[in-house]
Amino acid sequence: MIKVTIIGSGNVAQHLIRAFSNIENLNSTIVLTQVFSRNKDILGNVLDSSKITDDLNTLEEADLYILAVSDDAISEVSTQLPFTNRLVVHTSGTVALEALDNKNRKGVFYPLQTFTKNKAVDFKTIPICLETKLENDYAIIVEVAKSISDAVFEIRTEQRKALHVAAVFVNNFTNHLYKIGEEICNEHQVPFEILKPLIVETAQKIMVLSPEKAQTGPAKRNDTKTIEAHQAFLSNENQSTIYKILTQSIQHNGKKL
Amino acid sequence: MIKVTIIGSGNVAQHLIRAFSNIENLNSTIVLTQVFSRNKDILGNVLDSSKITDDLNTLEEADLYILAVSDDAISEVSTQLPFTNRLVVHTSGTVALEALDNKNRKGVFYPLQTFTKNKAVDFKTIPICLETKLENDYAIIVEVAKSISDAVFEIRTEQRKALHVAAVFVNNFTNHLYKIGEEICNEHQVPFEILKPLIVETAQKIMVLSPEKAQTGPAKRNDTKTIEAHQAFLSNENQSTIYKILTQSIQHNGKKL
Repeated sequence: MIKVTIIGSGNVAQHLIRAFSNIENLNSTIVLTQVFSRNKDILGNVLDSSKITDDLNTLEEADLYILAVSDDAISEVSTQLPFTNRLVVHTSGTVALEALDNKNRKGVFYPLQTFTKNKAVDFKTIPICLETKLENDYAIIVEVAKSISDAVFEIRTEQRKALHVAAVFVNNFTNHLYKIGEEICNEHQVPFEILKPLIVETAQKIMVLSPEKAQTGPAKRNDTKTIEAHQAFLSNENQSTIYKILTQSIQHNGKKL
Repeated sequence: MIKVTIIGSGNVAQHLIRAFSNIENLNSTIVLTQVFSRNKDILGNVLDSSKITDDLNTLEEADLYILAVSDDAISEVSTQLPFTNRLVVHTSGTVALEALDNKNRKGVFYPLQTFTKNKAVDFKTIPICLETKLENDYAIIVEVAKSISDAVFEIRTEQRKALHVAAVFVNNFTNHLYKIGEEICNEHQVPFEILKPLIVETAQKIMVLSPEKAQTGPAKRNDTKTIEAHQAFLSNENQSTIYKILTQSIQHNGKKL
């Protein structure tokens, strides 16, 4: 049996708690034994209250402590842990493994997904990126990760940085383009609903085609007439700048082929 | 019975032909009677060859002619049609209704989706944007559109322009961000596969949340430390420019709230 303790009660913590609770019913050898939350009430709907503590000093011995706290809090919370030489991992895409206090063995357990409160996700499909300082510890976290996900990867710190930057492009920036799409619709009394099937299909398309092959549109086919008409149509300077930069970027890639 | 003729054999034409063929089995009153294609072989797998013609002069009388040809060809093909005073619509998001030859009654039948060859789509979910020059003709195309789609909208020319520009942001530009995400992964020996669940969830998320509410990331929370680390990480100037512009755009919207 591998005993797991989660420290934290935010979005990632709650999704992890649900994922571990689901596998317990399957007689898994991985058991979530305890969760630390400053505010015990937050986890009322997620977990049996007997497993929740709000005092770090009452943390029991476990094989793995998952620090699912905000990036800024990782270092400090890891220092506050009242034990040594146990395996402590954080869940961040950006924070270095080294940020964890040296008194414990270190690692990273980074589920790469955007978690929404109250929106269920199938954890089995979520990639988990793993790293440990000591080679021997890797066997523990990989067993834990594989118990909740079918997509487990060993990812070193430099690779994780790259993944996180790439995730900003495909998640944060993409969502912002949705926002601009909505703005343009609102400005012209068009229901944004009309674009939603296109948004989903655009994402689904690259499950079967590379983004390179999936690229369409006026920039890709160097349709300067349409590009100029769009530029003239956009009265918002911010939208116009983004249109120009991304159009040029698509055209530039096209030329490099 | 409403007789429909499709002129064209490209992606949009083929998806329309499949959609109309599917409803014929349901004893619909809408019947696809004929398809014009310069090259009859292209449609060999899509339609009974007896319905295909490669000669505009053999087009039979129909209640609706759907010109599913490239934007550049719409005007010319509409001029070549050997009949007058019939209802002719094009399927483009950008071309004005006026581009159609005046000898026939005019309209637009614009399915807003990205069509991939050999990738089936559920036409029922695809928004179709309709416009006719004459009010009386609207009843015909709305009946035809509703036979293949549950999402039918009356969209005037100016609104359609807005929709098309917005579609460039949420489809063409979004796909380009996927491409950049893939580039960053490749540069650092990380499998792009890891990002695919995130890409799909990012799109799915705005089915339940507005893009405004779905926005996360360093730009949204003004996390300058992470933004600077990402900027330092990006050695590719093009990627760096896009990162900067989109980060500023997210931050700017934040301030305007």
